[in-house]
Amino acid sequence: MGNTPTLRFTLAQINPTVGGIDENINLILSAWKKFDSVSDIIVFSELVITGYMPEDLLLNDGFISITEAAIEKLVKQSSTMKSAILIGAPNRDKTALYNAAYLIENGKILSITHKVELPNYGVFDEKRYFTSGTRPEPVDFRDYKLGIMICEDMWLPNVADYLSLKSADVFIVLNGSPFEPHKQSIRIQHARARVEQAGIPLLYVNQIGGQDDLVYDGASFALNAKGDLILQCEEFIEEFQTFSFLKDDAKIYLQHSETESLYQAAMLGLCDYMRKTNQSKILIGMSGGIDSALSAAIAVDAMGAENVTCIMMESEFTSSDSLNDARDCTKKLGANFEEIPIIAMVENFMAALPKTSGLAHENLQARLRGLTLMTLANQCGAMVLTTGNKSEIACGYSTLYGDMCGGFNVLKDLYKTQVYNLATWRNSSKPVNALGHDGVIINQNIITKAPTAELRAGQKDQDSLPAYDELDSILMGLIEEDLSPSQMLARGHNPEIVAKVSRLLKLSEYKRRQSATGVRLSSRAFGRDRRVPIVNGF
Amino acid sequence: MGNTPTLRFTLAQINPTVGGIDENINLILSAWKKFDSVSDIIVFSELVITGYMPEDLLLNDGFISITEAAIEKLVKQSSTMKSAILIGAPNRDKTALYNAAYLIENGKILSITHKVELPNYGVFDEKRYFTSGTRPEPVDFRDYKLGIMICEDMWLPNVADYLSLKSADVFIVLNGSPFEPHKQSIRIQHARARVEQAGIPLLYVNQIGGQDDLVYDGASFALNAKGDLILQCEEFIEEFQTFSFLKDDAKIYLQHSETESLYQAAMLGLCDYMRKTNQSKILIGMSGGIDSALSAAIAVDAMGAENVTCIMMESEFTSSDSLNDARDCTKKLGANFEEIPIIAMVENFMAALPKTSGLAHENLQARLRGLTLMTLANQCGAMVLTTGNKSEIACGYSTLYGDMCGGFNVLKDLYKTQVYNLATWRNSSKPVNALGHDGVIINQNIITKAPTAELRAGQKDQDSLPAYDELDSILMGLIEEDLSPSQMLARGHNPEIVAKVSRLLKLSEYKRRQSATGVRLSSRAFGRDRRVPIVNGF
Repeated sequence: MGNTPTLRFTLAQINPTVGGIDENINLILSAWKKFDSVSDIIVFSELVITGYMPEDLLLNDGFISITEAAIEKLVKQSSTMKSAILIGAPNRDKTALYNAAYLIENGKILSITHKVELPNYGVFDEKRYFTSGTRPEPVDFRDYKLGIMICEDMWLPNVADYLSLKSADVFIVLNGSPFEPHKQSIRIQHARARVEQAGIPLLYVNQIGGQDDLVYDGASFALNAKGDLILQCEEFIEEFQTFSFLKDDAKIYLQHSETESLYQAAMLGLCDYMRKTNQSKILIGMSGGIDSALSAAIAVDAMGAENVTCIMMESEFTSSDSLNDARDCTKKLGANFEEIPIIAMVENFMAALPKTSGLAHENLQARLRGLTLMTLANQCGAMVLTTGNKSEIACGYSTLYGDMCGGFNVLKDLYKTQVYNLATWRNSSKPVNALGHDGVIINQNIITKAPTAELRAGQKDQDSLPAYDELDSILMGLIEEDLSPSQMLARGHNPEIVAKVSRLLKLSEYKRRQSATGVRLSSRAFGRDRRVPIVNGF
Repeated sequence: MGNTPTLRFTLAQINPTVGGIDENINLILSAWKKFDSVSDIIVFSELVITGYMPEDLLLNDGFISITEAAIEKLVKQSSTMKSAILIGAPNRDKTALYNAAYLIENGKILSITHKVELPNYGVFDEKRYFTSGTRPEPVDFRDYKLGIMICEDMWLPNVADYLSLKSADVFIVLNGSPFEPHKQSIRIQHARARVEQAGIPLLYVNQIGGQDDLVYDGASFALNAKGDLILQCEEFIEEFQTFSFLKDDAKIYLQHSETESLYQAAMLGLCDYMRKTNQSKILIGMSGGIDSALSAAIAVDAMGAENVTCIMMESEFTSSDSLNDARDCTKKLGANFEEIPIIAMVENFMAALPKTSGLAHENLQARLRGLTLMTLANQCGAMVLTTGNKSEIACGYSTLYGDMCGGFNVLKDLYKTQVYNLATWRNSSKPVNALGHDGVIINQNIITKAPTAELRAGQKDQDSLPAYDELDSILMGLIEEDLSPSQMLARGHNPEIVAKVSRLLKLSEYKRRQSATGVRLSSRAFGRDRRVPIVNGF
């Protein structure tokens, strides 16, 4: 049983940029200066110097040298500061690279702690880069013994047991833990298991921000020695909390509902993708359907209505309902609106290739829309937001180089049924920090009408696909649970439908490989979470 | 020192399909029956049951169950056979999955050997799937002790030393080793180190075939106890050799030149991608330039001229030289040829968006060509072969949804200077097994003229990019050697050019994420070999 530290901790939940060492150092220095006088130690997240996850930048010697120079800079700075900092950064010796935590104080590196447990599953490839450290000793700091762990170290008993055996007074955990629904309760569950075993308190610091497909939700927290939650930062925003385990001076922000957290993650993922790639203007092909409407709402909430332009591209199959819904929704959102019909484009193209029919003709329309959007985007320096949802992408119900055109996708990891839920939720709730309007912004007709791609007369999605409730239920089994078709049958699904959906899922992998990146909102998104071959006899 | 076995081995260098368990079992059974009477043991490659590399199929319980059923089928078969088989397959116990080798004889599994060294670098992610085995004991088989290793086990001394200590008589190595230039000499070098240490002979069996971006070259071999090469299978084709270490009855096929091996790998990669996805017809946008000409040549050599259609899509900027070169080259290749001008399409589109200019206008032309090709492909059930080379792809010198349209790319991992070399080589040498004509098939003018995208008047590649010799030299440093820009300066390159190329390489990552898959022909191809973030401050 440890000796509860009187230390004043500051949790620094910041938003680093992968590879942006100078920017990240500036964020660290700015927090350090701000909280120096009130803190004993300021704790940052895992690999905060490089941003998590730096992927193959870690294989580049020059990149590692720059991180070393940045740490040197912090060490120099520390001689003028009162408090210490604990930061995540890579650490190399002659033969290996480690995922490490540096404790820096008073012109010196007091300790370098190596991560022991390296995740190499799901989205993680840490064994590609790092060597596992030996179990670390607690670090002596101002009369206390700090038990420093890095992310996965906390998910297993191994490191915590050793630190506890060696009389650590507190666990301090640096994390780069991406968002998934219910992830926070899983984190707290693991943290509590460590605390209950050791009888000492725990501090957990996570980064926030979007990085390509991943979103980090923050939600940094502290547990006292009994395992009670005594501090929890807000999700999805930068935050700093200074507190001590002896005083009742920490804030516990409530977590968002599951629906709002999905929405917040999508907003942050898009916003950071734009900001960190120096872009601000978004173009969306507005069809009058639910996917483009929700995408536009998220774009407006993330970037502001003035930065979002919705383009309605009418064809001969566009209904007046769709036209009206697109106009109405854009108006409610306050976004810019343009109508550029593709009717003449289709006719002109058909003059060159008069035999175009069937699926080729459907794709042609989607591709002329994609071409129109990309031309406008190139002309005005905007990014096209593509709007395919996970159900469509799973089945290949989309046109490569057509509606799949775009730089980013906020719906990529949301099933169609989730898209409906989020749209309904957004109409009744304005998310924290959203830049859009309050109230109904997606007209009810968009939510209630039958979905259609409008690429031929009278077409409905459900002519080609099973009803979305059933489709999503099958897809969730095949994807999220990785069940086989026969296991899905045991759940009572229709054999023909299961066979069809499994087949579509397999055959459309080649399209997914060429799809835009988009926010990961589940525990098994397409991409680095689910690595399946294109050529696949299974 | 071992006891040289009198056993008759058959090396079975076959072409399995990832996930195609039934097909793979049929290939195994067919080889077994054919060589049963002349063999003591028939040796297949690593994970031959599933094909290498099965990626996340290995996470699917149902998939593993099917591999187990397939092994059961082979065990039953073995009671009617005279010889044994040694095959690679996954093996699971209650808590773990192993990359394993099964020795099957006489109605029984004689042994299951687990892979110890799991590669988790480059294109490999084996620690994502497998648990490392403990060092295996030699397996008793017909009076000899077999030292069985799986691929990476042979690249390090650990396993071989143990097998040698335990008196193995021969090393038998099952491999799934993808092609790279000079890979075979590296394999033999590692094999020889094991043989020289142990003083026993070695047998190395690799698979052949294309699987998405990877190509396996086969080149299975044997070394006698002195380390001499006594057997080497042909590269890039299925082959079986039956031999004994006591007799002088093995064949040593010479290796191809480096240039031919690149060409052969590209041919096999394309051919297997088409065959294993049940496609046969290829469309190529023929510009009159070197990239489309070489792509067409490889396509004709791989699939036959009757399956290849070259489409020349003239714009206002197309020179008569380009038109003539495209016609002439297609004629020499014997492929189908169509001309579909895009001049009117561009004009018609400009009527809808009259402000389109500059880069947007250049991209528009490339995208109308992409649209034309995709429409034709959809209409006739063909696949578009996209033709961007590694230099272009590295710099983003290509149009997303334009010339980047396509299902596969044989030049994806070839620098422009390599493209010229291959074109020149192909004009003087007909590759083994190529279906195309002998003699000059790429007119000399295509090889000697200055490269141009012809998207504006008088445009030349070298207006935007450094000369290809210099560009490729810089790119090879940045990509293949992962050097930093400052290291490139130390080699004497121009600072401005290095800065520009590094910047282009970083900024075009988003395009590469949406590019078609294509044959890996280097030790650092874009994709799973080089995993860099899109949002990248480095």
